[in-house]
Amino acid sequence: MKKMQISKAFTLIEPGPIILVTTHDGKKNNIMTISWTMVVDFTPIFALTTGPWNYSFAALCKTKECVIAIPTVDMLDKVVGVGTCSGADTDKFEKFGLTPVQGKYVRSPLIKECLANIECKVINIVEKHNIIVLEGVAAYIDNSRKEKRTVHAIGDGTFIVDGRKLNRREMMLSKLPDGI
Amino acid sequence: MKKMQISKAFTLIEPGPIILVTTHDGKKNNIMTISWTMVVDFTPIFALTTGPWNYSFAALCKTKECVIAIPTVDMLDKVVGVGTCSGADTDKFEKFGLTPVQGKYVRSPLIKECLANIECKVINIVEKHNIIVLEGVAAYIDNSRKEKRTVHAIGDGTFIVDGRKLNRREMMLSKLPDGI
Repeated sequence: MKKMQISKAFTLIEPGPIILVTTHDGKKNNIMTISWTMVVDFTPIFALTTGPWNYSFAALCKTKECVIAIPTVDMLDKVVGVGTCSGADTDKFEKFGLTPVQGKYVRSPLIKECLANIECKVINIVEKHNIIVLEGVAAYIDNSRKEKRTVHAIGDGTFIVDGRKLNRREMMLSKLPDGI
Repeated sequence: MKKMQISKAFTLIEPGPIILVTTHDGKKNNIMTISWTMVVDFTPIFALTTGPWNYSFAALCKTKECVIAIPTVDMLDKVVGVGTCSGADTDKFEKFGLTPVQGKYVRSPLIKECLANIECKVINIVEKHNIIVLEGVAAYIDNSRKEKRTVHAIGDGTFIVDGRKLNRREMMLSKLPDGI
């Protein structure tokens, strides 16, 4: 994994891929699968929705940090598996053959097998809606990986894989942040 | 456009497509292009991030309502066009050949050419982060449309078109809301 400019990390979340979020509660690592995410600012600030129904929620609130990891389509069964069991009784890294890698700014681990990882600090929790607001502090991408297609959850148990890429940079130049 | 069960409307936003948001400020209709959205609850509750830099923001805050319209890939140039001009000096429905259709619960118009539309009420504004929280009150889908592929903004002027669909319903049955 190579360091990625933090100013470009919002481009990992803006297209709306399903993500993995890791935490470390002081004793052990955990992972949850989340598809309710959005970019809130280019800097980057992200929001995600979770709550007490996710075992990771307590660690997220207590430690105020996490890692967002971006899986690709070849990892879909692991992603669904992570999302359908609980860290309360399962070591998900072990169960799904995922490798935790120590980041630099947070204790939550990066996931080696993922396309990209973003170390994040929790900067706000909007309790009324279970919205967690995160600041990305460091990002990494594995450009050596052949499979780069991410997956989008529909929410009904089906998923859409990334298809063709279309370029409208010229039309959009006035709206793109500097250096993007 | 046929009525869609409101309990299924979250599946339109969960995959993270770029959307159009219409408003009516009391005098005229307007449209903005947004890709910073997420689902917050199945009921459905949605969040989107916007702010005073968007001309539509004032109407959204004043009228506390909008319509989320889901465009498809054949509409990409209109979507980018809508996102790169301002309602302050442009009638975007006229400029981009889009047809406003009166909904039932809000004054903001549906967009006839879109795959789906959701009438929404603003239920909260998290001012610190410019996060608007919406409740979907009615949803419509045009199943007669051939082109159903949506588009995901990367944020750098490029876009990913929906590709293949994968089914993991069986693995996920325990996690799906009733009737989904």
